Amino acid sequence: MAKQPKHAISPLRSEDYPEWFQQVIKEADLAEHSVVRGCMVIKPWGYAIWELMQRELDDQFKATGHMNAYFPLFIPLSYLEKEAEHVEGFAKECAVVTHHRLEPDGKGGLKPASPLDEPLVVRPTSETIIGESYAKWVQSYRDLPILINQWANIVRWEMRTRLFLRTTEFLWQEGHTVHETKDEAVQETLQMLDVYSDFAENHMAMPVIKGEKTSNERFPGAVSTYTIEALMQDGKALQAGTSHFLGQNFAKAAGIKFIDKNETEQTAWTTSWGVSTRLIGGLIMTHSDDDGLILPPRLAPKHIALIPIYRNDDERAQVLEYCDKLRKELQSKYFHNRKILVEFDDRDLSNGVRTWHHIKKGVPIRLQVGPRDIANDSVFMGRRDQPTQEKKGIPRSEFVESVTNILEEIQSNLLERAQKHRKENTKEITTFKDFEEYFKASDSAGYALCPATDCTEMAEKIKPFKVTARCIPLEQNTPTAPCIFSGKETKTNILFAKSY
Amino acid sequence: MAKQPKHAISPLRSEDYPEWFQQVIKEADLAEHSVVRGCMVIKPWGYAIWELMQRELDDQFKATGHMNAYFPLFIPLSYLEKEAEHVEGFAKECAVVTHHRLEPDGKGGLKPASPLDEPLVVRPTSETIIGESYAKWVQSYRDLPILINQWANIVRWEMRTRLFLRTTEFLWQEGHTVHETKDEAVQETLQMLDVYSDFAENHMAMPVIKGEKTSNERFPGAVSTYTIEALMQDGKALQAGTSHFLGQNFAKAAGIKFIDKNETEQTAWTTSWGVSTRLIGGLIMTHSDDDGLILPPRLAPKHIALIPIYRNDDERAQVLEYCDKLRKELQSKYFHNRKILVEFDDRDLSNGVRTWHHIKKGVPIRLQVGPRDIANDSVFMGRRDQPTQEKKGIPRSEFVESVTNILEEIQSNLLERAQKHRKENTKEITTFKDFEEYFKASDSAGYALCPATDCTEMAEKIKPFKVTARCIPLEQNTPTAPCIFSGKETKTNILFAKSY
Repeated sequence: MAKQPKHAISPLRSEDYPEWFQQVIKEADLAEHSVVRGCMVIKPWGYAIWELMQRELDDQFKATGHMNAYFPLFIPLSYLEKEAEHVEGFAKECAVVTHHRLEPDGKGGLKPASPLDEPLVVRPTSETIIGESYAKWVQSYRDLPILINQWANIVRWEMRTRLFLRTTEFLWQEGHTVHETKDEAVQETLQMLDVYSDFAENHMAMPVIKGEKTSNERFPGAVSTYTIEALMQDGKALQAGTSHFLGQNFAKAAGIKFIDKNETEQTAWTTSWGVSTRLIGGLIMTHSDDDGLILPPRLAPKHIALIPIYRNDDERAQVLEYCDKLRKELQSKYFHNRKILVEFDDRDLSNGVRTWHHIKKGVPIRLQVGPRDIANDSVFMGRRDQPTQEKKGIPRSEFVESVTNILEEIQSNLLERAQKHRKENTKEITTFKDFEEYFKASDSAGYALCPATDCTEMAEKIKPFKVTARCIPLEQNTPTAPCIFSGKETKTNILFAKSY
Repeated sequence: MAKQPKHAISPLRSEDYPEWFQQVIKEADLAEHSVVRGCMVIKPWGYAIWELMQRELDDQFKATGHMNAYFPLFIPLSYLEKEAEHVEGFAKECAVVTHHRLEPDGKGGLKPASPLDEPLVVRPTSETIIGESYAKWVQSYRDLPILINQWANIVRWEMRTRLFLRTTEFLWQEGHTVHETKDEAVQETLQMLDVYSDFAENHMAMPVIKGEKTSNERFPGAVSTYTIEALMQDGKALQAGTSHFLGQNFAKAAGIKFIDKNETEQTAWTTSWGVSTRLIGGLIMTHSDDDGLILPPRLAPKHIALIPIYRNDDERAQVLEYCDKLRKELQSKYFHNRKILVEFDDRDLSNGVRTWHHIKKGVPIRLQVGPRDIANDSVFMGRRDQPTQEKKGIPRSEFVESVTNILEEIQSNLLERAQKHRKENTKEITTFKDFEEYFKASDSAGYALCPATDCTEMAEKIKPFKVTARCIPLEQNTPTAPCIFSGKETKTNILFAKSY
């Protein structure tokens, strides 16, 4: 085996975390920048992770009564303008279609021709265009609730882009629902926040804190925005999903009204909620190490990399036959309703190169099988959640028997590790002086949980630190204490961090 | 039961086929026009059909070795220009993004601001932008083949639009592959044509003719375009899917080169292939009748509509309990790897209204259950492939036992019916005089299969009839005969029709 560098990714996390992130993506072959400014190409391995996320979330949306539909990519400018806060929030990042034809420019090239009467905005989110349809669909209380989700591409013209975290075009789902009463709409908002938080913890092995956004961080046009916040390894927070209670703001703007049971016209209540390919960024920064990507088994496109080792044709025949049988045995088993998938890697490359390939791609289990292993009817196993040097010979039958348990163990191990990291990097802070020190000490300090009120003093005092209020956690059991910014007594803790 | 009109859809097919088509879509709640010119909203029932199509096609793509990925929505103008025929083919229908911000227009509204250095075209197809990535990814023969598919939205600025058949924005999949040799690329092109044709026949119950497009009908930039053509009930043809052998045209334009086994630089060979939401239009026009949509069971979002009938609370309790048990029995069974899905319709509406609702939506089987049926432990069944008046009481256990067979029977019945229709509306024509008469006689004559060569005489002579060469069928067993246009001897039949 060729001598390997100590770690597969350079720079290390400790040296340059943002650059390490780019390199993990590159080495795992997840995505890359395209020639189109700010847009990414999601490569097959990255897209396969997204497909697994989609499948699981989609099942959860359907289990909670939602159906999918599809609405136009384009929004007429006048529709976007209908909700004042909303358009103000998005006006600075809208791609605008102004022409619908190309014609010769007289210099051998082409130029835009046939200007549109009304410019079209490429959807930065779809509240306004979907609201237009809903206003037609809803007449009576019998038409409610409307529970629809859309899987779509979204465009927000971002100045500084980073793969998966912030790109001009990204993929997401956006749920848009309409309800008879305020209570129902609030319940829906919180239900979907739970769906997101369960998905993050149980599938992504990424612990999150559920909470409400402070007024400055609200979705433009929402009454309240709920969020799941995750803490990355570098101590920065990532907003991983949001669920908005829109009150009657968008319903009024679009005219979504209904005749209630008492024959009275009412304005409806709406919600919207979404997660995006940003989740893949969160997945990477929660688990990966200096050897590359680490995937929780529930979101791994392949559970096992199977690497045959041989020196000549005789050995080859024997090893391939053994591997083929082993692969079939493994692929007949299930891990969480999904067939266990084995990547058989018989490429004409050294054992070391192949092994590192699968390490960098985050495959949960690696198996090496050579003539000596076959003689013992055993396999040589490496687990991606354990140090790469740590490998162990196991009888084949024992491995096959326990493979589901091993995958389960890796899944829960990753969650526990992330929970531990979060616990170690969350500080309860009760004075502004301690707050200052905490965020001055390091560029990526972690979470600070502080008694605070969503006040103007807060907004002003946190600005110099490039810190934001991540959320007001839903779970609160705080005795009364003075707000660290205003001094006003409060029973509320707010969560702060630097963020992506 | 309220007296029902003789047919649920007005106008009838025989009265006004295009308007009948719109009304079927409306009454089945599949889709509608949006406020955005030429764009449609795909409603939940229509989108559920698309999801079933996607699931099945995606499985077939993966079974043939393809993986999914995602490429940018936007194409820089200069990239689109790289292949001359290609850009010419699409220049007239491109939506162009020219600005990336909105600013106040001084009249209380907003206007486009921050012009882009280079305009971006919203993808009308992705050969050029994907080629850009492939040129980077391919260095050596070891990197080949590349077998990638993308599920995406596409924009082509169409002047006359029709729901599902021709819309400004539509959903599709586009496969893009790269190969070492011409042979391999041609094989891939034909393999995917087979995947499409199997899907059309086995899942959509829509018989298709596989063939090559004549030179006039080729994809802009392709060496050869293969197609599956389906005959609609009105005698017009629908191009339902295409697979293109692109030769080295796009590879040269994008610079997709590789070092072969002999260390020589070679230009690669590429293919592309796609089907779109247009398939839903084909599905509707193949099977539906004057009572609305008819769905082949393999693509039905729900297999069975279960309608409880009762007059008072006592009956209600009894009927609901019985239905609940029946539903569970049915939903424990499978039809083609998918759980049998039952729509239980206990809405406070008459039996007639509910029944017609499910007829118009194309649900394959309707069951009515009232106290008398329960007394006999039987159900009252209507099949969507049979006249709506035809219903039959069957013992519950017999129905449950045979439900999979009944669905299978409906599926094959629909295919046979469509095959019969096609046979009856295909004429072998051997003289230009007969060709003239055939297409003059009716606006929607059907197929004409004629000895012909892909010649200039043909192009000129068919023009006045608004007829197009649909394809040169792959299956040919023709004796030599004179081309009906040029008189030149040929062993080839070409398929002609008016078309969508």
